[in-house]
Order: sequence, then structure tokens, then C-alpha cells
Amino acid sequence: MSQRESSYDIKTLENQLIKAIQQGAIQDEDGQLPAEPELMRQYQVTRYTLRQALKDLANLGYIYQAHGSGTFARPHHVEGAISLQNNVGLTEEMARQGRVVKTTAIHQQVITLDQADFLPESQKLPNETTLISVTRQRTLDGQPFLVEHSYYLRSIVDNIPNSALKGSLFAFIDQKPGLKVGFIDSVIECEMISGLPAKFFGIADGSPSLVVRDDSYLSSGKLFAFSKIFYDFRKTKFFMLKKMH
Amino acid sequence: MSQRESSYDIKTLENQLIKAIQQGAIQDEDGQLPAEPELMRQYQVTRYTLRQALKDLANLGYIYQAHGSGTFARPHHVEGAISLQNNVGLTEEMARQGRVVKTTAIHQQVITLDQADFLPESQKLPNETTLISVTRQRTLDGQPFLVEHSYYLRSIVDNIPNSALKGSLFAFIDQKPGLKVGFIDSVIECEMISGLPAKFFGIADGSPSLVVRDDSYLSSGKLFAFSKIFYDFRKTKFFMLKKMH
Repeated sequence: MSQRESSYDIKTLENQLIKAIQQGAIQDEDGQLPAEPELMRQYQVTRYTLRQALKDLANLGYIYQAHGSGTFARPHHVEGAISLQNNVGLTEEMARQGRVVKTTAIHQQVITLDQADFLPESQKLPNETTLISVTRQRTLDGQPFLVEHSYYLRSIVDNIPNSALKGSLFAFIDQKPGLKVGFIDSVIECEMISGLPAKFFGIADGSPSLVVRDDSYLSSGKLFAFSKIFYDFRKTKFFMLKKMH
Repeated sequence: MSQRESSYDIKTLENQLIKAIQQGAIQDEDGQLPAEPELMRQYQVTRYTLRQALKDLANLGYIYQAHGSGTFARPHHVEGAISLQNNVGLTEEMARQGRVVKTTAIHQQVITLDQADFLPESQKLPNETTLISVTRQRTLDGQPFLVEHSYYLRSIVDNIPNSALKGSLFAFIDQKPGLKVGFIDSVIECEMISGLPAKFFGIADGSPSLVVRDDSYLSSGKLFAFSKIFYDFRKTKFFMLKKMH
């Protein structure tokens, strides 16, 4: 099975499992899901596909995997929250909750490092670094939701077509030969905003915003992008599940 | 080796590794750490202890484990940030950065569910639930830092001695026979504050606060506590590392 087919299978299975959990169709009275062999049989998938899907659903907060005692549907998935552990991208995650993320405005420009509004949190870049600056405004169910400002290192990502800017930029990078998104350092803060984000959200300058700063690395350990996303704090909740043992 | 000894070994090793990384004493010019057998030899630990310690350090953002190509020290750990993936508790995590968390005020009271200021995010509790309400004010390096409001289910945690309230409540629960902290659902929001937290932080009513709401579960899947922590947003950054593959 090729990797593309396999990741397609995992996504399909995840969506089927989410639906079954939400309908209460798969768990028993205690919320427990059937054991692996039964799930493999029921959904006609390999153990690898099943395990990947269950891992992702645990990270998204749909299920809890208790060592030794099985897999349980979570009592109540926190409504409307964005999982900090999701690795499918915002558009896809919201779609699973029946919500629609759209990009309504895009601006792209080549700049030098000293022209950047902010720098990576976790690393110093050489002064001569050239960047592709991308600003996007995005809505959730038609309402202003976030303003994203990203810088891509031109030495790694030389050109971003407009078609890619409308959807997931990471999916675009992942399908480039030789590039693979490895990990992201995220810093979450509360920051006062003015100008574009405030105007887009329809709130006064000096209002707070929930801000996520991402430094994005290739699997080789090389920084390829850094960004700042301003969320309308009135509409934003982040969610994460932390295992203690 | 008993579990207690082993978790002591892991913590000791983690602190040694953090120190070595910060001093640049353990990584080569590319930031790469020695291979497992070499680290096991150097620190005289088992493979199990080493792997647990490396996993924790990866979650805390000190190192990055690249599949197939080894373990690397992170370029720059984000200064002063609180790891959302830490499972050692705030006091311990800050101590590793050379900072001191102190509890300056505590209030404890037994209440009924309808007297609670807020309810769990992820689950409904029966109306007749009795709670132990705990409010704590905590400082970071002597400066007001957070106000924590927690509710413990009295049916599970019947009594919290004042000595335990000064330190890590989860450590207190973990050492009770038959209780084991399993996982925590966290929701992170930006919320306007007034009253106690605003007064403690010395900011005006209606100022924003970075708020973390935790629903805490035993490893059996049973909710045992829910809490709301208000952080002074001017002093707070949360950090997390997200693996994409």
C-alpha cells in the first residue's frame, strides 16, 4: 500500500469513527469501544491504519486510551474548541465539526528579514535571509475569525502559487519533493491588537487577542517558516489533552 | 527496581541532561546528542530510564527526536514559557528554569455543586455532588502570577491537608492509595477579569487574562477535579511542540 493510499485510509476511518462516536453507535454503556481485532474486522482496515486513526482521535479529544483497560469515547468533546494537538490543519478539523473555514483576503510579498514585523521565537536567522510574507484573513462560518501573518524562508519555499494560499499551506509544502513538515513550536499568548486584526474582528484598537506564534521546522530540523495568528478571542477556545502517566 | 526509584532516576537524569544541554556540553556542533548506548553508559542508566527522560525533554521543548536521524538539542528553548505538555507540575518546571513559584494565599471550603462559580467543560455532574473548593494565589519570583480556583469531588478526594495545598495537589493525589491521575482536558481562553484576580495582578477590572480550564481525570476515566487558572497575561506565555508526522 502506498503512503498516499494509507493516509487516505486513515482519514476516512477517522471520519467514520467520529460519526459513530457522536451517534453513540460504537461504544457500550460505559463508553468503551470494541477491541482492536473487532474494529479491524468491522471497518476492514489494517492494524496500522486503526492505530494511527485512534492515536489521532485521542489527540483530538474524541477518545481516551487507558493502558490495559481499553479505549473509551470521551464524555463530551469540548464544543467548538480548536485542538492544539490536531495535525490535520484548521480547515479539516473544523469541517469535522460541521463548520466552514474560508480565506477571504490574501496578500503575498517578498521582503528581507529587517522588514519583518516579528522574528522567530526559537531561533536567530542571518540578516541576509529573504522571506515570502503572506497575510491571510479567514472566516469561520462566514464570521471574521483570524488574521494570519506568515513568513516563509525563500531559500526553502521559493514560490507559493495563489491556489495554495487559499487552502492548507502545509499540505502544499508536504507534497513538494524533498520537503516534509517535521514539527512546530507554538507559543500562545494574549496580546493587545490594533490595525488590521482589530478592524477585521470589528473591535476597538487595544482589545485583547488570543495569539499563536508558530515556528515551523522540516523533519530535517531546519526552520522553514514562522508565523503569528491573531484569533478573535470572543470566538476562540483552544483544547488539549494531557496524559499524566 | 520499584516504580518509585525509577521515577526518581528519570527526574534526576532529566535535570542532568537539561543542565548539559544548556551548557552546550553534550551536543556536537550540529546540536546532535550522542546515541542511546553512549548516553546510557555516560549517565549509567537503563534504556527505559533514558527513553522516558528523553520523551519528557522532547515534550518540554529541550530536544527534538528526529526519526532515523537522532536526537537534537533545540536551537533555543523559548525563555520563560510554560510548557502545556509538562507533566511535572508548574513549581517543578519553573524550578528547572531557575524560577520560584510560591503559594501566598489559600482558601478551602466544602460546598455543593450549585454554589460553584463554574462547572466542568467536558462533563455534567449530578446535582447532589459535594465539592471541596480551593482558591490559591501564587507568585513567580515574588511577583503576582496566577489565581487558581479548583473544585475537587469530595467522593474521591475527601480531605486535603493544608500542607498539601502549599505544593503540588496532583502529587498529593498520586500518592493516595488507589488514586492515579490519568489525563487532563485543558481549554485555553482569553477572558476579561474583575475582582480577586484583577486586584492580585494590580490591573483594572475588565482587563484580559489568559485562562486555563482543566478537567482532571483519574486513570480509570473518572473526573475527580475541575479548575480555572487565571494568569497575569503580561507575564504568561504557553509553549507546546507539535509533531507533524
